[in-house]
Amino acid sequence: MPRYKAIIQYDGTNYAGFQIQKNANTVQAEIEKTLKQLNRGQAVTIHPSGRTDAGVHARGQVIHFDFPQSREPEKLRFALDTQTPNDISFLAVELVEETFHARYLAKEKVYHYHLDIGQSRSPFKRHYAAHYRFTLDLIKMRQAAKDILGTHDFSVFCAAGSSVEDKTRTIYAVEIIQTSETDLLFTFRGNGFLYKMVRLLVGTLLKIGNGGLPEDAIQRALEDQDKKMIGPTAHPEGLFLMEVKYDTSL
Amino acid sequence: MPRYKAIIQYDGTNYAGFQIQKNANTVQAEIEKTLKQLNRGQAVTIHPSGRTDAGVHARGQVIHFDFPQSREPEKLRFALDTQTPNDISFLAVELVEETFHARYLAKEKVYHYHLDIGQSRSPFKRHYAAHYRFTLDLIKMRQAAKDILGTHDFSVFCAAGSSVEDKTRTIYAVEIIQTSETDLLFTFRGNGFLYKMVRLLVGTLLKIGNGGLPEDAIQRALEDQDKKMIGPTAHPEGLFLMEVKYDTSL
Repeated sequence: MPRYKAIIQYDGTNYAGFQIQKNANTVQAEIEKTLKQLNRGQAVTIHPSGRTDAGVHARGQVIHFDFPQSREPEKLRFALDTQTPNDISFLAVELVEETFHARYLAKEKVYHYHLDIGQSRSPFKRHYAAHYRFTLDLIKMRQAAKDILGTHDFSVFCAAGSSVEDKTRTIYAVEIIQTSETDLLFTFRGNGFLYKMVRLLVGTLLKIGNGGLPEDAIQRALEDQDKKMIGPTAHPEGLFLMEVKYDTSL
Repeated sequence: MPRYKAIIQYDGTNYAGFQIQKNANTVQAEIEKTLKQLNRGQAVTIHPSGRTDAGVHARGQVIHFDFPQSREPEKLRFALDTQTPNDISFLAVELVEETFHARYLAKEKVYHYHLDIGQSRSPFKRHYAAHYRFTLDLIKMRQAAKDILGTHDFSVFCAAGSSVEDKTRTIYAVEIIQTSETDLLFTFRGNGFLYKMVRLLVGTLLKIGNGGLPEDAIQRALEDQDKKMIGPTAHPEGLFLMEVKYDTSL
């Protein structure tokens, strides 16, 4: 059966997350509903590179699905793009080998986290950035961010509810850039991320930057698996899955 | 009674416009509800530089109001900023002369209109830009925009429902800039704008740019008051009131 890979965007504001669940509006449910219509009423299951939580956004989520009918990819992209709700869009669709798998073959993921640091919270960023009105020491935060780099057991940065066994991940880059007077942008690149890991890392970096945790909190958290060295989970609205990389890219 | 001037922002997506009306959620109703609470239950009326329509946004709307109690302006700003809903924010509040009037004394207004020209509509711009997926000739549009400049009777660009008598306005600048591969930004500066005038001008410029109207359509519309030379009203979600200027600025 022909397998398709798609790059999709979604605004997570009005969804209870990516994964299908009973009595809740999810990204997966919307896409599968549209695919079912395109497939003459036969159900089609989609597989993402990974789930995203309620309120979390994606600018470059990757999914794959098997679709019984052979379709010109651009026509399928246009149909999915226009027939799904306005807060989901299909950037690209391509026919791939039957061995392609959006989750198992993902080599690298890139996340952004947006912080609105204006004294007055911007109405236009309220769904796309977390608001933080207190003082932050960026130099301290950038220094602490270096402790995240490399290969570690990140169990302490994994929220309860994960079924993953191996919690070792390799982080290639963490950047913190002030992009305007009122905007702070975090970038995380790694071979994978655990459940709520990015938001726990951001919450910990913010607490270090505000003086609520010592500068070496992340190092100590990782070494001793010490939950007291961890900040709160940062709000979902600031988080964007930007890109998923594979050996052969779309 | 002390008079205050305030610069406010709002996301118009969830409002039936600025002006208070029965059985509808409006920006004015929300702000007056908060002011009433701050004023021990006594009603306070606010006066904007002008109304904005349902779905239209403001990054620099100006209002004034008389508030019986003398308050430190920054404290009043903080109270209003935090006690109004998240889609309304107060950027600045200052005490002004009793003769100040947000509408009568406005000398100049600046509007932006955002167009998402990507083939796939961005989920993140759906409330903050109108989507337009067809070809546009920017050179033609910029040429046509010159016909808007100067002092004209803009009656033909005024939607029904306006009670304004003098429909002569002076437009200082119209700019059309492509700010990214998928973003087009229109800027309008003038001494005032009629009801739906900016959206009718944008709709006409788009129709010229797409070949549905001749290049001199605006000139002919103004000279002959010819409605056939006018395009449709562009969607509200792309429109932002950016700034209102007074002789003495805040």
